[in-house]
Formats: sequence, structure tokens, C-alpha cells
Amino acid sequence: MFPSSIKKLISELSKLPEIGPRAATRLVLHLLNRDQSELDNLSSVIKTLKSETQLCQQCFNLTEKDQNFCPICQDLKRDRQTVCLVENVLNIIPLEKTGYYHGLYHVLGGLISPGNGAGPEKLKIKELIERLKVAEPKIAEVIFALSPTTEGDTTTLYIERLLRPFKIKTSRLGRGLSVGSDLEYIDENTLTNALLSRK
Amino acid sequence: MFPSSIKKLISELSKLPEIGPRAATRLVLHLLNRDQSELDNLSSVIKTLKSETQLCQQCFNLTEKDQNFCPICQDLKRDRQTVCLVENVLNIIPLEKTGYYHGLYHVLGGLISPGNGAGPEKLKIKELIERLKVAEPKIAEVIFALSPTTEGDTTTLYIERLLRPFKIKTSRLGRGLSVGSDLEYIDENTLTNALLSRK
Repeated sequence: MFPSSIKKLISELSKLPEIGPRAATRLVLHLLNRDQSELDNLSSVIKTLKSETQLCQQCFNLTEKDQNFCPICQDLKRDRQTVCLVENVLNIIPLEKTGYYHGLYHVLGGLISPGNGAGPEKLKIKELIERLKVAEPKIAEVIFALSPTTEGDTTTLYIERLLRPFKIKTSRLGRGLSVGSDLEYIDENTLTNALLSRK
Repeated sequence: MFPSSIKKLISELSKLPEIGPRAATRLVLHLLNRDQSELDNLSSVIKTLKSETQLCQQCFNLTEKDQNFCPICQDLKRDRQTVCLVENVLNIIPLEKTGYYHGLYHVLGGLISPGNGAGPEKLKIKELIERLKVAEPKIAEVIFALSPTTEGDTTTLYIERLLRPFKIKTSRLGRGLSVGSDLEYIDENTLTNALLSRK
């Protein structure tokens, strides 16, 4: 019912996460109504995306191809003695948005998930240990900012044990009620955490 | 916090409908993990999208650049005496999916919306009238498949009046209960329609 070039783009877009065939079709029709210059623009940033970026050599956040370190690691105003461990690059965004964190990051690139056969060897854990050894100034605190799930907790426990010999302070994000949530619908685990962390 | 090429793509993608900055960021990270050949592919279909498509000269559905008529208008097995009026190209998809409609279409390209200053002159109404005059074989029925909204009904009434001189049968999609809906939550208008169209 549609020409093949449209079908091809719909099927390409449907492969993307969170975009089903219906949303893809709507996107294509939207693109058809945009100026060619805008399509050229979008097309070229997609094409050069990979060749223009790489991972930061220190924290594995994204960085420009010609820069060894990401904007955060390069920022001399940040507290270089605090490192926040995150699962992936996306998790950096909300932490930065709080405006309360001024240290550096370390992106693990996943979580340990024995159920899915995802062991610790694929994560940037060796690199973290190496980083702790050579860091100048010495790292004083590692904050575990992993998801409050079995995988997140398993990963935190595993890495905490590895860090013990370094005698570095470790901490985890506090657990309790989400702002704006309704007490009636909160699960017992969250409520237990909220009771334990009451002030 | 991200390199500028990433920020550029996130901002380009955020301009698309139904993609906010968060979904755009997730898309970009997903694209970074795909092969360059896949990015080249996506990039090139976006670039050539407009130059490879045009509107069908008969029904204003999408068609290939080198084809004057869309796949549906070209399909000789379809009933050429029935024309289904739709607001836009997207509305063709669910109608085709029913498997019950075998006629042709006419894409209006919008609805009359006096509140938004959208008058009938921007819609393909003149083209519909012209089509009815010259169609061979003669068109026997025009089905109005417009949204059951004030705009849809206004447009249907406006065009029905224009079609009167042609003495062509006109019909509208039946109104009633949506399959799977809960009677408790149905508005009175729908329920009235359901009562009136009871079998």
C-alpha cells in the first residue's frame, strides 16, 4: 500500500527501541513534510555518529573522536576524589541534573546478571580497579548509583568486596519514598527502606 | 556532558513527533551500538526519502517518484467504483488491515476545522469533484471514513452537500461500541449511536 522506499524506512525505523511500526509510519510521514535540508542534516549526523565519538579513556562516558577524555573528566572544577559508579551513560544525565553531584563517573557498561549469563568480566571493573590504583589525587569515595534491583545490588556487593583492600569509603544511593508517590501504593521493600532511613 | 555530535543528534531527533529528549538520548545510544553499515543504510533512506516519493495523481496516497499512481490505484483487482475518503495517508493502513475494503481511496490531506482557521480550500476536495466527473467506470459510492469528531463530521457534511448533484451513494462508517470496551465507561454519544445502529 506504500511505495518501497517508504516501506524500507518504516522497517528501518521499526528496528529502533521503543518505535513500533505505527510510530515509525507516523515518523516517516512527518519526515516527508520537512525540508530536504533538514533531512540532509539528520541523515549526516546519523552517518557520522560513530566515527565522531568514542569512549572516554578514564570513565567510559562518550567523548569526541579527537578527545581522549569526556567533558566531565576534562572539567578541572570537578571533585576528582569522588567517583560515581553507574550502569550506563544514560544514568549520568539525571545525576547531573540534580546539580548536587560534582565528582567524576565510572560507567560499568552493564550489571552482573547471573540469570542472563552476564558475568562481571564484561563490565569495566578491571578498569575501575586500575583507575583507583593510579588516580592522582587518590580517590576518596566511590558512590554506587546502580538500580535498586537484584542485578544492581549483586553488582554493588561484588564490586564493594573488590574495593575493600583499597580502604576507600563506599556509599550507595539512599532508598525511600519517591517524591510525589502515593503511600497507599508503595511496596513493602520501599517502605522498609523508608523506615530505616527516616530522619 | 556529552560530545557535541551526540548533542546535535539528540536535538535533531527530539524535533521528531513523539520523541522527547529522553527517548532521543536512548535512541542515540542504541545507534552507537549498531554497525556502521546499518547507520549508513538508515542515513541514506532518510536522505532520499523525499526525492524517491511523491503523491499519487489520483488519490494523493504516497507513490514512487517514477510512478504517477500509487500501488492501490494501480491494482486492477480492486473495485474502482468505490472510493473511501480519508483524512491522511495513515488512515489507509487500518482500513487495509481489516481485509474488508477493496475499493480505492481519496486522501483529503486534513479536515475542516473552523476553530483552527483550516477551511476546505486546503483539502483535496476540488480534486475529488474533478475525479468524480472524469472517473471511468463511474464511481458508485463514496464512503466517508473520517474521525468521529466535530472536525470530521463538519468535513463530511460539507463534502456530502457538494456531492449531492452527482447522485452518488454516500455512506459513513458505522458508530457504536468499540470491540473490547467496557460498557461502564462509554460516553452517552457513543451509547446513543450504538442504540441507533443496533441490529
